[in-house]
Amino acid sequence: MMARDIEDPVDLLVQLLRKLPGVGERTARTRCRNISRSEFCPVCSDEKRDRASLCIVGSVQDLLAIERSGAFRGRYYVLGGYIAPLDGHGPEDIDTGRIVRMVAEEGVDEVILATNPTVEGDATANFLAGALKDAGARITRIATGIQHGGEIEYADPVSVSRALGGRRQF
Amino acid sequence: MMARDIEDPVDLLVQLLRKLPGVGERTARTRCRNISRSEFCPVCSDEKRDRASLCIVGSVQDLLAIERSGAFRGRYYVLGGYIAPLDGHGPEDIDTGRIVRMVAEEGVDEVILATNPTVEGDATANFLAGALKDAGARITRIATGIQHGGEIEYADPVSVSRALGGRRQF
Repeated sequence: MMARDIEDPVDLLVQLLRKLPGVGERTARTRCRNISRSEFCPVCSDEKRDRASLCIVGSVQDLLAIERSGAFRGRYYVLGGYIAPLDGHGPEDIDTGRIVRMVAEEGVDEVILATNPTVEGDATANFLAGALKDAGARITRIATGIQHGGEIEYADPVSVSRALGGRRQF
Repeated sequence: MMARDIEDPVDLLVQLLRKLPGVGERTARTRCRNISRSEFCPVCSDEKRDRASLCIVGSVQDLLAIERSGAFRGRYYVLGGYIAPLDGHGPEDIDTGRIVRMVAEEGVDEVILATNPTVEGDATANFLAGALKDAGARITRIATGIQHGGEIEYADPVSVSRALGGRRQF
């Protein structure tokens, strides 16, 4: 019976996976690729959010962390993964065209690259900055540095270096 | 015998402590209050260091961490402690006059407040920014944010908030 109803067990697996949040069409179908049961996630649907500011994050978990911080009032785009050549993920896995269209069609004037300050997150931010350079929006990158409550004495040298390099007018 | 040689055991303790690096006159006597056996520490003595850039740190350990990062080519001033009212350390414990004179006499054009991004380090930076506002130098603060290699998903909300607030043009 099963063999006749479901010809290919891989199809069945894909259908089951698509029922899980964050996987497959259900997510990809939304504007921002955040978890949602409809075309627009709760953030996208919120009329009070600033449409001129687009924050690009690696994952839904990162989006939720930024929401928890309360520091961002714009909207998001969830990449769903970083460029990681060793894992077989190249720039072609990022839907650059979609992001460029979003910037143009939604009147975005700032794109915040909020990818992790890891090798892969930095590489992805670099790629996106290049891909979006003619999209008509200012491109910014979140600050890397000493974490809140952290001590310079115990921070890694790269964080110390970036904290100094990223210093700002008081 | 001991009682006759050393009248006051507290004096003895102080004398012994002063022989340790980082404590007492031996340190305070130097220009920057870094550990040194002479008036000028190895950084201050280095003619190749940029005298126009003054980095204010909380401790000698912080100075060493910044030196390890290789990101700073100027000179230092070591506070030796932060403003911490609950521990009895007020603004009067900071030799503001000395720092202001240093800025004027050494032609400093940027003061980098590299205190820890902790409650006490932030309070001290705020105090110093106010105290130095007419000293004639640009006042900057090191970046707080996500640490290098860190993930937004697991960062505390304040660090996420500061990483966003401290974003920079790519």
